[in-house]
Amino acid sequence: MEIDGHTKLVGLIAHPAGHSKSPAMHNAAFDQDEINARFLAFDVEPDQLPAAVNALRAFKMLGASVSMPFKQAVIPLLDHLDKTAELVGAVNTVVNHDGELTGYTTDGIGFVEALKDNGVSLSGQTMTLAGVGGAGTPIAIQAALSGLKTLNVFNVNEQTDCHATFYPLEDRDQFKQSISESDVYTDATGLGMGKLIDKTLVDDPGWFHQDMTVFDTVYAPSVTKLMGVANQAHVAHVINGQGMLLNQGAAAFKLWTGQEMPLKDLSL
Amino acid sequence: MEIDGHTKLVGLIAHPAGHSKSPAMHNAAFDQDEINARFLAFDVEPDQLPAAVNALRAFKMLGASVSMPFKQAVIPLLDHLDKTAELVGAVNTVVNHDGELTGYTTDGIGFVEALKDNGVSLSGQTMTLAGVGGAGTPIAIQAALSGLKTLNVFNVNEQTDCHATFYPLEDRDQFKQSISESDVYTDATGLGMGKLIDKTLVDDPGWFHQDMTVFDTVYAPSVTKLMGVANQAHVAHVINGQGMLLNQGAAAFKLWTGQEMPLKDLSL
Repeated sequence: MEIDGHTKLVGLIAHPAGHSKSPAMHNAAFDQDEINARFLAFDVEPDQLPAAVNALRAFKMLGASVSMPFKQAVIPLLDHLDKTAELVGAVNTVVNHDGELTGYTTDGIGFVEALKDNGVSLSGQTMTLAGVGGAGTPIAIQAALSGLKTLNVFNVNEQTDCHATFYPLEDRDQFKQSISESDVYTDATGLGMGKLIDKTLVDDPGWFHQDMTVFDTVYAPSVTKLMGVANQAHVAHVINGQGMLLNQGAAAFKLWTGQEMPLKDLSL
Repeated sequence: MEIDGHTKLVGLIAHPAGHSKSPAMHNAAFDQDEINARFLAFDVEPDQLPAAVNALRAFKMLGASVSMPFKQAVIPLLDHLDKTAELVGAVNTVVNHDGELTGYTTDGIGFVEALKDNGVSLSGQTMTLAGVGGAGTPIAIQAALSGLKTLNVFNVNEQTDCHATFYPLEDRDQFKQSISESDVYTDATGLGMGKLIDKTLVDDPGWFHQDMTVFDTVYAPSVTKLMGVANQAHVAHVINGQGMLLNQGAAAFKLWTGQEMPLKDLSL
């Protein structure tokens, strides 16, 4: 579908933004669904964030994806905040309804949907979660909303404003114990990628059991060191962050367009 | 060339904007020249103009085209103004150099280049120009800068801040006389399109002579009533606004990208 005078814009607002896979994903989906729109990534300087948000209104954009470092900073610039985004305290998706901007978070939905795609339901389950930063917080909230029974969170900095049980990551015995009692272990620390590619919080396959799920939010490399350890332990479901990324994108796509993202037809 | 995280944006800022041919022209040229950029048209509400201009900085856009009704209003929002744009008092092209916005006008260049494409030079010539609105003013200025000897301007409202001679359009005898003495007659009134499709300032072929040029800035329809009259008079060069449109676009394209627009390779 060629760009014409009616083509709508969706933007990624992030800093940096050039490495993003979102343009490829969303433009392929716009093509597939024959939606007259384009997705471009914008590397926005922090002092330009208000101007970038105002651009959504001025350009009558469908909306935006919001990524680091703006997921919290964008909130006071919006007109409305979805309930889950309010709970999480972060926004990764903005929808423009006639100049009224509403913030959503779809990261947690992406996590839950990625589990579903692998045949895993959180209902009544016990989960150990390492890391409650940008990825961990929406995962914790959405997991709680999806019927999780017990959540044990391990983090380098303790937090207390949640009904889940929080432990310091330094408490290795407690950490090992929690994983052994969990149906799902989720790592949202970002360890295992980039400069930390050789790092993992669990290097002993004996900490895992076969009938559990190990979920790493990292998507590159596609098999992290943690996932290698889980594979050694013959863990039933070892999942990387790719499905979470696609599903959070699909949830955002539906918010902007009202249509399903044709995930199966996309070759990414 | 697929959109990726580094794809740059250029926008049309106008109200309305949906009818614009600029997206087709510029995107075809970006493709042809393998420039990683896309051109989208934005229908900007008048009270949103400052936000639209700030978006150029926030999104690190290459620049923008500016059309009605913003060609004058945009000027105080820019950091710099090109000399010709200053003379004309209007901007149709904005270039973003690291957040510093400079306004240019390429409409006059488009006119002169379109004449050149038809083998017509203005050097030492006499021109009659009807209309000094958004299109007529840059034409008058650029024609003067291109070596025109005599310019007679006919307009419904008299103006006096120019060395050219201004006449009221109502003075039909003077108008007929001026055309008969001219090498070029240019109509920049916008008559002959839309609701005024049946209108022409000249309906008698006897007013024209064969070895002249008749230039109508209208491009749709491709042969206006005025051009029909000129054809009846067997005028040597009867030119519509299409070439002017392409050439003003090409001049803007070069300002944004530093590269020539591959006009001959574009199928528009």
